[in-house]
Amino acid sequence: MKIIKYPNKNTWSELLKRPTQTVNDIESTVNQIFEDVQRNGDTAINKCTSLFDGADLQSNLVTKQEIEEASSKLSSELKAAINQAKSNIETFHKAQKTERVSVETSIGITCWQEKRAIQKIGIYIPAGTAPLFSTVLMLAIPANIAGCKEVVLCSPPNKDGKIANEILYAAQLCGVTKIIKVGGIQAIAGLTFGTETIPQVYKIFGPGNQFVTVAKQLATKYGVAIDMPAGPSELLVVADDSANASYVASDLLSQAEHGTDSQVILVSTSENFINEVETEIKTQIKVLPRQNIAEQAINNSKSILVKTNEEALELINDYGPEHFIVATKNNNFYVNGIQNAGSVFIGNYTPESAGDYASGTNHTLPTNGFSKAYSGVNLDSFTKAITFQNITKEGLKNIGNTIELMAEAEGLQAHKNAVSIRLKDIIPAQAGISNSKTE
Amino acid sequence: MKIIKYPNKNTWSELLKRPTQTVNDIESTVNQIFEDVQRNGDTAINKCTSLFDGADLQSNLVTKQEIEEASSKLSSELKAAINQAKSNIETFHKAQKTERVSVETSIGITCWQEKRAIQKIGIYIPAGTAPLFSTVLMLAIPANIAGCKEVVLCSPPNKDGKIANEILYAAQLCGVTKIIKVGGIQAIAGLTFGTETIPQVYKIFGPGNQFVTVAKQLATKYGVAIDMPAGPSELLVVADDSANASYVASDLLSQAEHGTDSQVILVSTSENFINEVETEIKTQIKVLPRQNIAEQAINNSKSILVKTNEEALELINDYGPEHFIVATKNNNFYVNGIQNAGSVFIGNYTPESAGDYASGTNHTLPTNGFSKAYSGVNLDSFTKAITFQNITKEGLKNIGNTIELMAEAEGLQAHKNAVSIRLKDIIPAQAGISNSKTE
Repeated sequence: MKIIKYPNKNTWSELLKRPTQTVNDIESTVNQIFEDVQRNGDTAINKCTSLFDGADLQSNLVTKQEIEEASSKLSSELKAAINQAKSNIETFHKAQKTERVSVETSIGITCWQEKRAIQKIGIYIPAGTAPLFSTVLMLAIPANIAGCKEVVLCSPPNKDGKIANEILYAAQLCGVTKIIKVGGIQAIAGLTFGTETIPQVYKIFGPGNQFVTVAKQLATKYGVAIDMPAGPSELLVVADDSANASYVASDLLSQAEHGTDSQVILVSTSENFINEVETEIKTQIKVLPRQNIAEQAINNSKSILVKTNEEALELINDYGPEHFIVATKNNNFYVNGIQNAGSVFIGNYTPESAGDYASGTNHTLPTNGFSKAYSGVNLDSFTKAITFQNITKEGLKNIGNTIELMAEAEGLQAHKNAVSIRLKDIIPAQAGISNSKTE
Repeated sequence: MKIIKYPNKNTWSELLKRPTQTVNDIESTVNQIFEDVQRNGDTAINKCTSLFDGADLQSNLVTKQEIEEASSKLSSELKAAINQAKSNIETFHKAQKTERVSVETSIGITCWQEKRAIQKIGIYIPAGTAPLFSTVLMLAIPANIAGCKEVVLCSPPNKDGKIANEILYAAQLCGVTKIIKVGGIQAIAGLTFGTETIPQVYKIFGPGNQFVTVAKQLATKYGVAIDMPAGPSELLVVADDSANASYVASDLLSQAEHGTDSQVILVSTSENFINEVETEIKTQIKVLPRQNIAEQAINNSKSILVKTNEEALELINDYGPEHFIVATKNNNFYVNGIQNAGSVFIGNYTPESAGDYASGTNHTLPTNGFSKAYSGVNLDSFTKAITFQNITKEGLKNIGNTIELMAEAEGLQAHKNAVSIRLKDIIPAQAGISNSKTE
C-alpha cells in the first residue's frame, strides 16, 4: 500500500479520488441491444445469449425440476449455512417494518403515510468465476418481507445452459417467483420492456459489470427504477494500536480480492500500526488463490497517517466509504460522528465478511461516495411510501382560507375554487366574502 | 373530456398512455452548459443568467437586506396562511421520524440501522408566471427536520434581478441556509459541480421545466442524487353518484390549469355522474383566468366508464396516478386496494389543493406512473439509512463457520480468512480444522 503521512487537507480530494470510469463507448452497445429487445423480444434475447454466453437455449425459464436437482446437489453443510444466514437477514429486515404514520395535523385534517410493496421487481445476479448466491439472499429476502408480488431473477447461463446450483437453491428458498436464464445488457432490457418470457418490472436490483451498470442507468430513462448506481467495491478501515494488525490486514485483503479496481484504505493515527499491517499483508497475501487480483488492488491502495481522531473522521466523511471498519480505542467517537458510509463494522471481531454473508445487514451498499446521499438496500427499497388524507367539513373550515390565500398568491385560481366551492356549502355566509375575492 | 365507455382491458395500456416527451434535442444544450459551468464556474453562470433571464447581476447571492424587504412587503394574511401551512407540514413530517432499529440477530451479533441527514442539499424553485413558494415549504421544512446542514435554494431572477418576495419569505422561514439567484440548467450544473458562490450538494430536489428535468437527470451521472424523475402533473378521480359533481369538476379543473400537458382522468361506474361532471366543467371553466390552458388540458382528458369498483381499482393501479381522489360509496375499498399512487385524497371535503398547500402532506410526488416504484418526497428523502454491526467473540463463534462455508462456495478465500484468522484466536482447537480446509 502507498503510505501517505499527514496529508494536507487541500490534498484530500485528490488523494481520495476514485478512478473514473468511461462509459461513453459502452453506451452505444447498450442502446443497440435495448432497441433490439424492445422490438424483437425473446428473439433478440436468445441471439444475445448465444453470442455473449455461448449458450443456445430451448427455453429461458428455469424449470421446477432444475431447481430440485440443484437442491439435491448442494451439501447439507452449505444448505445449513445458507439457512442460518437467511434467518439473520430475515430478522434484521423484518425489524425495519414501519407502521402507518397517522397524525391529525389540525382538527378535522387527518394525514397518514403507509408503505406499500413495489408489485414487480427484478433481481440481477451476475455469473462469472463463482456464483454470488449471497446476493440472492440480500435481495429476495427483503422483497418477500415487503410483499412484492412478482420477484423475477435473471442470471446468465453457462455454456451448458445452466445457472449455478447455489443460486437456484437460494432463489427458491427466498421466494423468487420466476428464474430466467439471461444475463448482461439483454437481461436488463428484458426486465425493462418485458418479452414473451421475461416480465416487465418496476424496479431492478443487483450488481453487475460495467455493461449491466450502464444498462440499469438506461433503464431509468424508460421509467424503471433501480436500487442505486454501482461502482467498484470499497473498504475503509480506521484502526490504532488497540487493534489487531493481522485482523485488519485480513479485512483489507478480503476487499482487495474482489477485483483489481477495488478500493482499500487504511486510516490510522499510529505509524507503527500502519507498518505492522503492511508486514501482515505481505504474509497473508501469499496463500490467496486470488493473489494476483489482490496484489494489484493493494498496490493501488493507501495507508493514510493522520494526527488526530477528529482529522480522521473528517477525512472519512469526505470519502464516504461503502464499508467502514472501526477498530480503535475510541470507537464511539467514530460511530457517533460518521455521516457518510454504507455500513459500519465495529470492533476487533466484526470483519466485513460477516455483513457480506450472514450477520443480518444488507450487503448491497452505496459505493463511489454515493453514501453521501444514498442508503444501502433495506426493506424500504422494496416499498414506496404513499400518503393519504381525509378532511372533514370542520377541517376544511379550519384550513380553507389558508389554501385560498396561498393558491391566489401562486396565481392558481382553479386551485382556490376547489376550496371555495366547498366552503360555500359549509359556511354560506363566509363564502360570500370568499366569492367576492374570486370575481 | 373524452368519454370512453367500458373499455376492454386490452385497450387500457393505450388508453392510459402518457404523452412521451422527446428529450434528445435538449440533451446537447444541457451537456454544453454543464461543461461550461464545470470549467468556468460563476463566469459561465453569469453568462447564462444574462442570456436566459435577461438579468445582469452584481452578485448571485440574496442578501439579508433583500430577505427583510421581502418579508415587509407581504400581507400579514398571507404570512399567517404560510405559517399555518408550515405548522401542518411540520407536524406531519416530524411524525415520520424513525427511531434506531436495533436487533440481536443471533447471540453476540447486534445489527442496527440509523437514519442520518444528507449533509448538503439543493432546492430548485422555478419562477415563471407565478412564484411557487409552496414548494419551498414542501422541501425546506423536511430538510430542516432531518437535520441537513446546508440547504441551498436556487431560483431564477426576473429581469430586475429579483426573486419573488413570497419565495424569499418562505425560504428564510423554513431554514434555507443560502439563496442564490440562478435558474434553469445552469442552476443544476452549479449545484452539481459547485462554483465560487454556489455550494456543491449531494442531492437536488424540486420541480422545473423540461430543461431542468434533463439537467437533473444529467446531474445523476456526476454522482448527485435527485428526488425523482419529473413529468407533467396528474390527477385521477374515482367517483360515483354519492359524490358531488361540482366538487369533482373543480378538482379536475385545478389540475387542468397547471399546463396544457396536465393529465386529468375521471373514472366512474355511473354514466349519469360523468355527464353531470361534464356539464359542471363547462360552467366552471368560463371564469378561470387560465381558461385557455385548462381548456386544452381538459380536451385531452378522459372520463372512463367502468362496470365495477374492482375493474376501476385494477385500471387505477395500472395507471399509478400522482394524485388520486376517492369520492365513492365505498372509499375503503379503494384506500385499502390502491397499490400505485403518490397521494390519496378521500371524501367530498378533501380537494387536491389541500395537499398542494396546507394539510401537511408533501406535494412533491411521482408522476408518469413512477408511483409504481417511487415514493413522494418525505422525511426519509433527506436522510440515508446507515447500518451498523458489533459482533462479540461469542457472536463470531456462532456465525463464523457459516461465513466460512459461504465465502468458500463463492470462491472468495480472503473473505473466509478474515473469519478464520479470528476464530483461530477464539477457539484454537476448532481453528485447526478450519485451517485444514483452507490449505
